Amino acid sequence: MEKCNVTIMPENKIVTVTKGSSLLLASKNAGIYIDSPCGGQGTCGKCAVKIISGDVIINSDNHFPQELKDKGYVPGCQVKIDRDMIVEVPAFSRLTKHKVMLSSKRTKFSKDNDYFAKAKMNPVCKKVLVKMKAPDLLDNVNDADRLRAALAKQYAIKEVKISLGVLRNLPNLLRKGNWEVTVTLVEAYGNCEIISMEPGISKKPCYGLAVDIGTTTVVVNLLDTANGKIIDKAGTYNKQAVYGSDVISRIIYTDENSRGLEILQNAIIESINELIDEILVRNDLHGDNISAMVCAGNTVMSHMFMKIPATFLRLEPYIPAVTKFPVLKAKDLCLNINEEALIITIPSIASYVGGDITSGVLATMLSKSEKITLFIDIGTNGELVLGNSDWLVTCSCSAGPAFEGSGISCGMRAMDGAIDLIEIDRLSLEVKCRTIGEIAPKGICGSGLIYSLSEMKAVGIIDRAGKIVENLSTSRIRLGSEGMEYILAYADESSCNKDIVITQGDIKNLLRAKAAIFAGIRTMLQQVQLDIHDIERVYIAGGFGNFINIVDAINIGLLPDLPLERYEYVGNSSVQGAMIVLLCKDAIIECHELADRMAYLELSVGNLFMEEFVSATFIPHTDLDLFPTLEST
Amino acid sequence: MEKCNVTIMPENKIVTVTKGSSLLLASKNAGIYIDSPCGGQGTCGKCAVKIISGDVIINSDNHFPQELKDKGYVPGCQVKIDRDMIVEVPAFSRLTKHKVMLSSKRTKFSKDNDYFAKAKMNPVCKKVLVKMKAPDLLDNVNDADRLRAALAKQYAIKEVKISLGVLRNLPNLLRKGNWEVTVTLVEAYGNCEIISMEPGISKKPCYGLAVDIGTTTVVVNLLDTANGKIIDKAGTYNKQAVYGSDVISRIIYTDENSRGLEILQNAIIESINELIDEILVRNDLHGDNISAMVCAGNTVMSHMFMKIPATFLRLEPYIPAVTKFPVLKAKDLCLNINEEALIITIPSIASYVGGDITSGVLATMLSKSEKITLFIDIGTNGELVLGNSDWLVTCSCSAGPAFEGSGISCGMRAMDGAIDLIEIDRLSLEVKCRTIGEIAPKGICGSGLIYSLSEMKAVGIIDRAGKIVENLSTSRIRLGSEGMEYILAYADESSCNKDIVITQGDIKNLLRAKAAIFAGIRTMLQQVQLDIHDIERVYIAGGFGNFINIVDAINIGLLPDLPLERYEYVGNSSVQGAMIVLLCKDAIIECHELADRMAYLELSVGNLFMEEFVSATFIPHTDLDLFPTLEST
Repeated sequence: MEKCNVTIMPENKIVTVTKGSSLLLASKNAGIYIDSPCGGQGTCGKCAVKIISGDVIINSDNHFPQELKDKGYVPGCQVKIDRDMIVEVPAFSRLTKHKVMLSSKRTKFSKDNDYFAKAKMNPVCKKVLVKMKAPDLLDNVNDADRLRAALAKQYAIKEVKISLGVLRNLPNLLRKGNWEVTVTLVEAYGNCEIISMEPGISKKPCYGLAVDIGTTTVVVNLLDTANGKIIDKAGTYNKQAVYGSDVISRIIYTDENSRGLEILQNAIIESINELIDEILVRNDLHGDNISAMVCAGNTVMSHMFMKIPATFLRLEPYIPAVTKFPVLKAKDLCLNINEEALIITIPSIASYVGGDITSGVLATMLSKSEKITLFIDIGTNGELVLGNSDWLVTCSCSAGPAFEGSGISCGMRAMDGAIDLIEIDRLSLEVKCRTIGEIAPKGICGSGLIYSLSEMKAVGIIDRAGKIVENLSTSRIRLGSEGMEYILAYADESSCNKDIVITQGDIKNLLRAKAAIFAGIRTMLQQVQLDIHDIERVYIAGGFGNFINIVDAINIGLLPDLPLERYEYVGNSSVQGAMIVLLCKDAIIECHELADRMAYLELSVGNLFMEEFVSATFIPHTDLDLFPTLEST
Repeated sequence: MEKCNVTIMPENKIVTVTKGSSLLLASKNAGIYIDSPCGGQGTCGKCAVKIISGDVIINSDNHFPQELKDKGYVPGCQVKIDRDMIVEVPAFSRLTKHKVMLSSKRTKFSKDNDYFAKAKMNPVCKKVLVKMKAPDLLDNVNDADRLRAALAKQYAIKEVKISLGVLRNLPNLLRKGNWEVTVTLVEAYGNCEIISMEPGISKKPCYGLAVDIGTTTVVVNLLDTANGKIIDKAGTYNKQAVYGSDVISRIIYTDENSRGLEILQNAIIESINELIDEILVRNDLHGDNISAMVCAGNTVMSHMFMKIPATFLRLEPYIPAVTKFPVLKAKDLCLNINEEALIITIPSIASYVGGDITSGVLATMLSKSEKITLFIDIGTNGELVLGNSDWLVTCSCSAGPAFEGSGISCGMRAMDGAIDLIEIDRLSLEVKCRTIGEIAPKGICGSGLIYSLSEMKAVGIIDRAGKIVENLSTSRIRLGSEGMEYILAYADESSCNKDIVITQGDIKNLLRAKAAIFAGIRTMLQQVQLDIHDIERVYIAGGFGNFINIVDAINIGLLPDLPLERYEYVGNSSVQGAMIVLLCKDAIIECHELADRMAYLELSVGNLFMEEFVSATFIPHTDLDLFPTLEST
């Protein structure tokens, strides 16, 4: 097949691709990730590039902002490479280092949700020193049974499999260690196996990984499983992001491309492997030193992680292929750790309530408390759990990724240059913005959008229905190409060469997103015949949840109007649950029980959710009685 | 690396090999197998070749027969290829089609050892048709659990694993089959797994293989596991033969060559794969149609089959790495069947009592009868089992491969041209020989050797100590290069260009071999305080045992002097046991119980065996009371 060279500026990086490839792919191959939340459909207008040389074919630029067109930019996803070319990828089109929430805010946890205060540590992988008597003509038991007998005697381990790899080294290692060896044992669902062996006493601890596979970001924690200490952490983008910002667009990608599923699996495996490599190098370890990995992810991510098609999750009646995922070996998935290492995936509950939620419920221990608790994970989607030790209900509100900046004209992820806080002067309607990294603004992230909505409502720029009020005496409100808009930052203040605005369309999207979540909460409550004030505790989980301002979220009607002391941030509870499962081998059984216990509420059945949704698209709500503290302001 | 071309005549086959390779390897690469029972050590003198062109380096020809040297032959294993050459490989140096005992002589079995007369057929692999209700919004259970629920309801199958490969196809196949699929289930040790799936009703039966991995030959039987019918059979040499004729020389090969173990594993896997391919083609099947394989082999073969080093089986105190072999998947061993197919290996008892013996005991059901039974498997080695339903003793007599023709000057395997029966005229001492295939004789096989010994003793050519009597009036007795010898066929009658003789050295080797087996029987009997006449039944198993003449074997003191009606040929009981395990999944548990029950007698401990051995090196024995029927003749 014919090849073309693409030079990417300003790095001057040259990549060779097959003629006909897209520029997104070429750029990815060069290690430069162009933001493309719509998955290369040409609808989001975020992947602006400038062609420096080479006549190129642009498939379509219908949805591409006129402002950028005027400045010579074209949509990168629509560039088909049919000859050598030079292209500039501007900073504002790139995925840069993201605020990946690595750490769990454990300090904010109450004392009653520290799992190991109640459970014994009993890790999925561990090393034990085994001593045997040397064989002779009268005691001529074979090597494998000799080892098994010693394990039974010293550690009361009855049934143990020995991996083929270990069997192949067993005779030499036993004799090299003079009948004293350190074995690495892994166990899941009661099946115990020796996956590696060292002669004599091992010099390295036994390591395991806890992994959170998010739609947007991936987090890997390295633990010493003997003491539960977190040795290192790493986080990055999910490389799948270039194929679509949400799970639906990624499923579509797998359905529309013959090798799509394989490509998406490779992307997620690559994302994880890169983090593993980073951690290995930093800690002077070899992949073989890592003996287990526990993964938590939403249902679609867990499917794609294993290359199981998620096609039917997207089509009514929304059926996953599997929710109780098999235990795999690292070699099954080409993960860069010991090839026999166990890969345990936390079970999902339904198509849109995944293992990350099961994991979060495990970590927060809400299912063990009498307090009626609401668990909210606002990430690329919004998942809710309501319940206590007696009952549990869960649902998924198709809130969409608006709070992650997707589908919002100037929306972006929470990375450097994102406006995350604003203040509007009540009289002049002038605005002050704070950005992440305190650099010139480039766009608005989720928390910035909530602030904006709350502030714009408070100062009267928008009304209760979210409509931008015309004829106010400020030049910051104007008629844009898609209706009214409010300017947060002018092009000359920004780092993206264009005005940063919130449009009427953006507000509509945000209201839909917040309404979906609030309606989900209300629908669940009605299902169990409770009221908002019956909620005794609210856990806010997820990468986005960590940066949210609760007062403003209540102001816009995203979160219920409850006393602030009932709210608690729990951080990345998905990776916390994965760590618990890694350190306590019985916790995976508990996850299965949790998944079975949680009653899944399919919101698309019946009219209740739709009615609640419509009522919730106002600020804060059509029924102001639901927000008593706001009424008084 | 530099390459050389080797042309092999008379085929005119050209192979290219790295300079420095041995001619044995070059010939093997050309698909021509040169007989080399010593494993290329240059000591057996069986690999004669003629160099047609090209000056070659002969490492050593010290042990090579002068007769062949005179005719221009050189030892093929000692030819190092350092330039292009043409070489002739004569027919008598080649491994040809062998009398591989494919079938079990089931007709000769007594009624009380038909396993399935008492056990229910319940195969390791089977296909079942599963019907499900289509999901909807209210019944939105995931695909995997829907399938599991149907299996539980229709077939009472509770716990079932679904292989990753099936999971990946599950969503599409369920819908393609309109919620009706045929699944292939495999089960071993209580672990049930779905390894393949077809939409709707399957058109193919469920197939499994029973394999006997012998040191010399490999046999594969294809079975329809639904009805237990043997669909096809195939047998061939174990390709390992070129690396040594017995297990000891093969272990030495693995110890002395860095990639030796890998080479020997490849050889056995290749041998099996070729038989599988032969069967697949003949029956118009695809490898994927085969879902399980049960293997029986001696302990060394089972180790090498899995690439587990057998090094320490050869060194005192003779310890195997493992006797209870793990259940593997076909993909672990690169076998040409469904990659998820179960590979079950029958457990060994000790280093030199292997899974073939466990399998034989299972098949003959001697452990279920009250009759005291002696089970003898004379193959490359001699293994014995003695016992009944109350007790079982087993041992291995290092008889060596003399009865397979190895270490015997004109010895050969039971293939075309092998003398298998002789008759010596009492007066003239002239001899008539019968050969396999009724062609000009090429050598003598095991049964021929037993006949010869028996006849030579009967006519007085040898005395009770096996010494060739000098000064008899026949030109057939002469002084050869290595002492006295008796000529069975002259060079001009033979197809190997040399006299076919039995030398004094051959007789010594044969007496040692038969003495080892008889001494083994006696030592076992003494261990349980029984006499020879207490043996109520003798089962003769193994490829060689099938062709043995019991009267002559008793005459030379190889087999005990018991009424002939107590003897029963059981044929290849190793493959029979493998078939039973394939058709009855609980039989593998029974094999483990058998292996545990059999008390292994290490003959090298104490003096008893050695004393018995020395007494048994006479014909038939020093103690003639042990052979009462012979005394009277």
